[in-house]
Amino acid sequence: MTSIAAPRLSLLLNWYANPYHTPVFMAHHLGFYQEEGISPAIMETTDPSDVTDLIGQNKVDIALKAMIHTYAARAKGYKVISTGTLFHEPPTGIIFLKSSGIKGFDDIRGKRIGYIGRFGKIMIDDLARRAGIESGAYETVRVGMNVTDAIIQNKVDAGMGIGCFQQVELEQATGKETGILRVDELAGLGCCCFCSILFLVHEEYLAANQETVRRFMRATLRGTHWTLENPDKAYELLCDQIPRLRTETFRKIYVSCLPYFSRDLVNVDRDWDKVGLYAQQLGIIDDAMDNSSCYTNEYLPERPYSTFQPIDGAYISELKAS
Amino acid sequence: MTSIAAPRLSLLLNWYANPYHTPVFMAHHLGFYQEEGISPAIMETTDPSDVTDLIGQNKVDIALKAMIHTYAARAKGYKVISTGTLFHEPPTGIIFLKSSGIKGFDDIRGKRIGYIGRFGKIMIDDLARRAGIESGAYETVRVGMNVTDAIIQNKVDAGMGIGCFQQVELEQATGKETGILRVDELAGLGCCCFCSILFLVHEEYLAANQETVRRFMRATLRGTHWTLENPDKAYELLCDQIPRLRTETFRKIYVSCLPYFSRDLVNVDRDWDKVGLYAQQLGIIDDAMDNSSCYTNEYLPERPYSTFQPIDGAYISELKAS
Repeated sequence: MTSIAAPRLSLLLNWYANPYHTPVFMAHHLGFYQEEGISPAIMETTDPSDVTDLIGQNKVDIALKAMIHTYAARAKGYKVISTGTLFHEPPTGIIFLKSSGIKGFDDIRGKRIGYIGRFGKIMIDDLARRAGIESGAYETVRVGMNVTDAIIQNKVDAGMGIGCFQQVELEQATGKETGILRVDELAGLGCCCFCSILFLVHEEYLAANQETVRRFMRATLRGTHWTLENPDKAYELLCDQIPRLRTETFRKIYVSCLPYFSRDLVNVDRDWDKVGLYAQQLGIIDDAMDNSSCYTNEYLPERPYSTFQPIDGAYISELKAS
Repeated sequence: MTSIAAPRLSLLLNWYANPYHTPVFMAHHLGFYQEEGISPAIMETTDPSDVTDLIGQNKVDIALKAMIHTYAARAKGYKVISTGTLFHEPPTGIIFLKSSGIKGFDDIRGKRIGYIGRFGKIMIDDLARRAGIESGAYETVRVGMNVTDAIIQNKVDAGMGIGCFQQVELEQATGKETGILRVDELAGLGCCCFCSILFLVHEEYLAANQETVRRFMRATLRGTHWTLENPDKAYELLCDQIPRLRTETFRKIYVSCLPYFSRDLVNVDRDWDKVGLYAQQLGIIDDAMDNSSCYTNEYLPERPYSTFQPIDGAYISELKAS
């Protein structure tokens, strides 16, 4: 009765547990973390805007957050660093019902546009400036990640979200046709890398726990590969862990998210350069910031994974049998 | 761009955000925490069994967990202490569909019974011993808090849950008649206080943050009173924050949970004594444990709340107007 458990690794998701977190839940459920001798406790946030503060104040060990927020956190003085990419370039933009009459970005005039947090508003205002839309011609409303609910509740006419998530959700919930105005197209970015979801750690935590982080990334990569190789089974196992995801809407979201899992978890130099420039243009960071402080691929298994452990056959047989 | 945010208070719920957490979400949304100068970041757990480790290892500032787990944590050597009660004596027991043929506890023979975590299994085995049911006559299956899903997926025939939560959920999901075998009745406890949900802190955190904890408890009590005085409005505000709770099932769960919010957040001496004895009988703690180390009411506003701040009229007018 007096044995204290092994130290837990606290892992904070960027939102509630959802299909794009499947690789982490697979690594957890299939024992890949355990085999590495680590014991993550996976937590969800009820407010995505809290995550930057919590990892920036070193109150959680590893957290998920988008690339643009990582720049913003560094600019704020938070010593956070990305050790890898979970979800790569999900299509991100202003989501709407076609019945709203929105066809192009010009149509946001007179509309209420939902945004997630501070940087979402900055992005919308920047797009409006680029499009020559007079400020004050549209209204912005903070809705967090809950743009689908905000549209359904008629709190906004459209809002920022991810094509493979909130757009699918909106279509499912309303049974109506939806559209998305992609930020990357409007801003001429060529990719939605600003929205790629990364694994962040605090520099102090990393310095003291290098081997733990290495093990975490290795097991998570195994979880990713397992997900990609067993997509239907992975969704079933996800639902066993988080039963509220066992709905037709979440199944569709899951399938839509599958193409965006990073195959190798690598931080892509080109993306960091591009998003760094974008963040400067948005005024989120100044041009003195060196992005080499923002990320590292040092904790990922060596490519082409010569030391990579194959999936344990026992697990698969067990799963097939069950 | 270089201003670091105020230190955040990390608050870990005992499960996913759900209707019985409404007082906390009201205190958050209505600015009661902010008025106290504190800034909680509310996190959910994806595995309720993780919470004891995280608060016991001082990795989160405040956590919610049941009374029986608080005893178990102390027995494990974790220096956790309850500073108040959120949810008081929710009816807890073995939940089933009447179509399973279960009528009384004797009927668990030959059945698969789901349990939440380690102590749930200990309780079921104890009840069986009390009822003279031979060990091996039934099967136990760990299902976490997801007993409803486990019954629907035919992984178990019945399982431990809360009457005002999983039983309501099971009835809603199946449209069938359900039943509950209450642990307190079977074990002769006279109350379900072992399942009361408490606010836990680590002793080290408490020693260094007494005023913060005091402010947190005061604001949470305001959130409780606001919930009880504005139940319909509180549910609406909860759904604005956590839109997935905007379903008929969660509305029914919410209404069913309302009677169990602690009115004063007090740790009830009688309950601690009773559950301490029960925990001894279950072999979770030894009889040398002094329960005065497990809880304190020192951080609650003085009763009868002579210094208690009335709800700010401005908020209510604003809400009525919106």
